[in-house]
Amino acid sequence: MQQAIAIFDSGVGGLTVVKEVKRQLPNEKIIYFGDTARTPYGPRTSEEVRSFALQIVSYLIKFNPKMMIIACNTATAVALDDIKAILPIPVVGVIHPGVRTSIKYTKTGSIGVIGTSGTIRSKAYQDAIHMISSNIQVISQACPEFVPLVEKGRFQNEESLDIVRRSLEPIMHEKLDCLILGCTHYPFLTHLISEVMGSEVKLINSAEETAREVSAILFDRGQLNASMNSTPLHGFFCSGDKVIFQKIAYQWLDETVDVKHTTLVH
Amino acid sequence: MQQAIAIFDSGVGGLTVVKEVKRQLPNEKIIYFGDTARTPYGPRTSEEVRSFALQIVSYLIKFNPKMMIIACNTATAVALDDIKAILPIPVVGVIHPGVRTSIKYTKTGSIGVIGTSGTIRSKAYQDAIHMISSNIQVISQACPEFVPLVEKGRFQNEESLDIVRRSLEPIMHEKLDCLILGCTHYPFLTHLISEVMGSEVKLINSAEETAREVSAILFDRGQLNASMNSTPLHGFFCSGDKVIFQKIAYQWLDETVDVKHTTLVH
Repeated sequence: MQQAIAIFDSGVGGLTVVKEVKRQLPNEKIIYFGDTARTPYGPRTSEEVRSFALQIVSYLIKFNPKMMIIACNTATAVALDDIKAILPIPVVGVIHPGVRTSIKYTKTGSIGVIGTSGTIRSKAYQDAIHMISSNIQVISQACPEFVPLVEKGRFQNEESLDIVRRSLEPIMHEKLDCLILGCTHYPFLTHLISEVMGSEVKLINSAEETAREVSAILFDRGQLNASMNSTPLHGFFCSGDKVIFQKIAYQWLDETVDVKHTTLVH
Repeated sequence: MQQAIAIFDSGVGGLTVVKEVKRQLPNEKIIYFGDTARTPYGPRTSEEVRSFALQIVSYLIKFNPKMMIIACNTATAVALDDIKAILPIPVVGVIHPGVRTSIKYTKTGSIGVIGTSGTIRSKAYQDAIHMISSNIQVISQACPEFVPLVEKGRFQNEESLDIVRRSLEPIMHEKLDCLILGCTHYPFLTHLISEVMGSEVKLINSAEETAREVSAILFDRGQLNASMNSTPLHGFFCSGDKVIFQKIAYQWLDETVDVKHTTLVH
């Protein structure tokens, strides 16, 4: 029985990580939990997000996964250390992979970060960058309107472009050479963000970078699944509306997924 | 006493990895060994390269490093598994980080790899790519003339461009969207390789990607050095001519390094 990679998020945003894990590690089995009944996490208190995250981890660990991915920046910011401390398997959040890529990429030494209010308020990106390299300038901007756009499936109309432009206005003219999409929902809006920021600013997709680090860590631990006998069967669970989740998953992953509704005990 | 990251190569090529580790992880201390007396490794037999690598590892392990980087593709291809098996610390080679980046990057599903004859003959890149994703096409080309160019410090003249053009001729017109520089010496020739391959082919610098994975693995293991009290003092050793080594190190790292000559017992 192949051990899966467990992935969770406040909602559908973590599907950007699922898409990348599927693409970069096609032999790996995935179990996903989206807490769509309680999304968004961004405006909630740290205590609340931490308790939700621990609740989801208790649920997912029953599937005996070989790795846990916190595919939500808000939850990574407040709960990564706690979850690492209690689980016997590697735990990867979505903050540090993007941080490492930005440090690799930047020539100007000025890195931009956008995220939910919770993530930006936590200063998690700033701390993670400065822990590694203290001389880098970090310019942060909260974009609280982005997650609701994505959760409603509205990421291709003119109204969305207006919201994106208004949200990024404060950092548009900063001397950044890269911008971390510090929320797993934001890759859905890549084309709009890129239109506003201009082609000279590299957008760092935390989902892509997280999948890549998952690959590195599983390799380091000798746990990559190399058997190519069959396509892995993934499992998807959500706490809210199954139909909307399924629709967005189909749109994003380009395949029909079987979603089960789950009520966590709370 | 801060534990160092040990790095070794057949010669000066691994300095490209040193440069990136210094840039991406400025708090980390480095111990480097360049086997300049026996460079290049590319044309040697696997048995010979393996025994040289094990000899160097025995030397470096006395410094009590927290990680070992094989900054040489030829040695990674033949000795990574052996070294992993005998050392109690994480061992990172330069093949898999580039492989993971190419899988992340490719849209066409066609990846190019250039390396020494030994590396290309070993099919190590092909195996590493196909272990993760079996549908990717890998187009390989040995470039045996590149390492001698770099070891002699000749990487900026017209003659070098001719050699680079001639070496890459067989793969110039393939439908690649990325090309892995599968030898740590090759980043010295980036501008020439890019001129020949064209700007639409992304060159993947194994040195950059290796430093990034070192960062990820040390973080996963809770071993990143966050103290910023002082600039770390690195140590450089080589088995051959100290003066040439020092000259290339100065040119590449943009600082004077203190190099010690060491004869390994052999």
